[in-house]
Amino acid sequence: MKRAVVLLSGGLDSATVLAWMRREGFACHALSFSYGQRHAVELARAAEIATALGAVSHSVTQIDLRAFGGSALTADIAVPKDRDDASLSHGVPITYVPARNTIFLSFALAYAETLGSSDIAIGVNAIDYSGYPDCRPEFIASFERLANLATKAGAEDGTKFRVHTPLQRLSKAEIVRLAVELRVPVGRTVSCYDPTPDAQPCGRCDACILRRRGFAEAGVADQ
Amino acid sequence: MKRAVVLLSGGLDSATVLAWMRREGFACHALSFSYGQRHAVELARAAEIATALGAVSHSVTQIDLRAFGGSALTADIAVPKDRDDASLSHGVPITYVPARNTIFLSFALAYAETLGSSDIAIGVNAIDYSGYPDCRPEFIASFERLANLATKAGAEDGTKFRVHTPLQRLSKAEIVRLAVELRVPVGRTVSCYDPTPDAQPCGRCDACILRRRGFAEAGVADQ
Repeated sequence: MKRAVVLLSGGLDSATVLAWMRREGFACHALSFSYGQRHAVELARAAEIATALGAVSHSVTQIDLRAFGGSALTADIAVPKDRDDASLSHGVPITYVPARNTIFLSFALAYAETLGSSDIAIGVNAIDYSGYPDCRPEFIASFERLANLATKAGAEDGTKFRVHTPLQRLSKAEIVRLAVELRVPVGRTVSCYDPTPDAQPCGRCDACILRRRGFAEAGVADQ
Repeated sequence: MKRAVVLLSGGLDSATVLAWMRREGFACHALSFSYGQRHAVELARAAEIATALGAVSHSVTQIDLRAFGGSALTADIAVPKDRDDASLSHGVPITYVPARNTIFLSFALAYAETLGSSDIAIGVNAIDYSGYPDCRPEFIASFERLANLATKAGAEDGTKFRVHTPLQRLSKAEIVRLAVELRVPVGRTVSCYDPTPDAQPCGRCDACILRRRGFAEAGVADQ
């Protein structure tokens, strides 16, 4: 069975990617990061989801992005709430974490090369994607080129790394439907950027707004 | 004064890069990694060198590459000793750490973006470079393209990230001469992959061999 490294945050999108990669026949090694995020509850959920969806392993790598800050997720900057459509669709929001997906994919690449795997999967999405530059298809394509140049596997053994992005062109409603089809425990996934102290979603951040709309459009109950 | 992030390992090459970037007029923020390397003595030297060469700041980021292993520097794999010329110039050695420079540059990118800097410097070198794929010019060029796509600064503000590699085409002897010219405290730099418990170089690993040859060819005493 071919091995793959699947970036798993505990959110709906990456859980759906894990289920998709399992259906594609990969032995999946899930990788999460404890990076100083305010929504660290997602890590406990990631572990639970990795087990539920049959990952071979689940690792949590510690990195400290709070040392750099620069984001509402990793510094003492308020998470924006109740933004309207115009705000949601305009520009890169303050919840963008500098170079986060580049860092996550770099670790996934190190892990994949060590496992002898050429396959990495990530739940990026270019629609309903909150405007993050490191979720765009051109970023992913650029990372694939980099991976082949960066590694012994690519330079010496001719490995062609592939970054799987099965959600790239799906709307949030389509992701919800796919998740249900793939039997993802959607009610256990967490999307909120700024959960309450008892780990309940705030209901008002961009991630909560986009999630609520996705479930409503899909006609699926979020539980 | 323009800011730059300089990757600093405590070795001769990165110390020379820091001195070079200072001469270029950059306010330099040095960045080192504690990544589970067996030669962690380099971190203490990095701090000393950062101060000696007038870096504005020196940060050490903790990451655990031992979790992945796959290298003589980060796993229980012996560091090769006394290799001959044919071995030294052939293939990627076992001291290659999977995706290490990709990870280091990704953190440097996060730091640079947070600082409002577009300049990153790294001591990679395509001659006497031990065969690491992530030291090649095509890898660096690919990372620059990725950086512009990956970031808010690149995507929204039109920042063009530049990765400075002043040693790229220098021989080890030329690096030694440049280091002396730039008043790098060369005797305080450490290159050894496998130092003794009291932090002395082993004298027999690839890094020690290449360093000794470089100083000999340059006609400079290593002290």
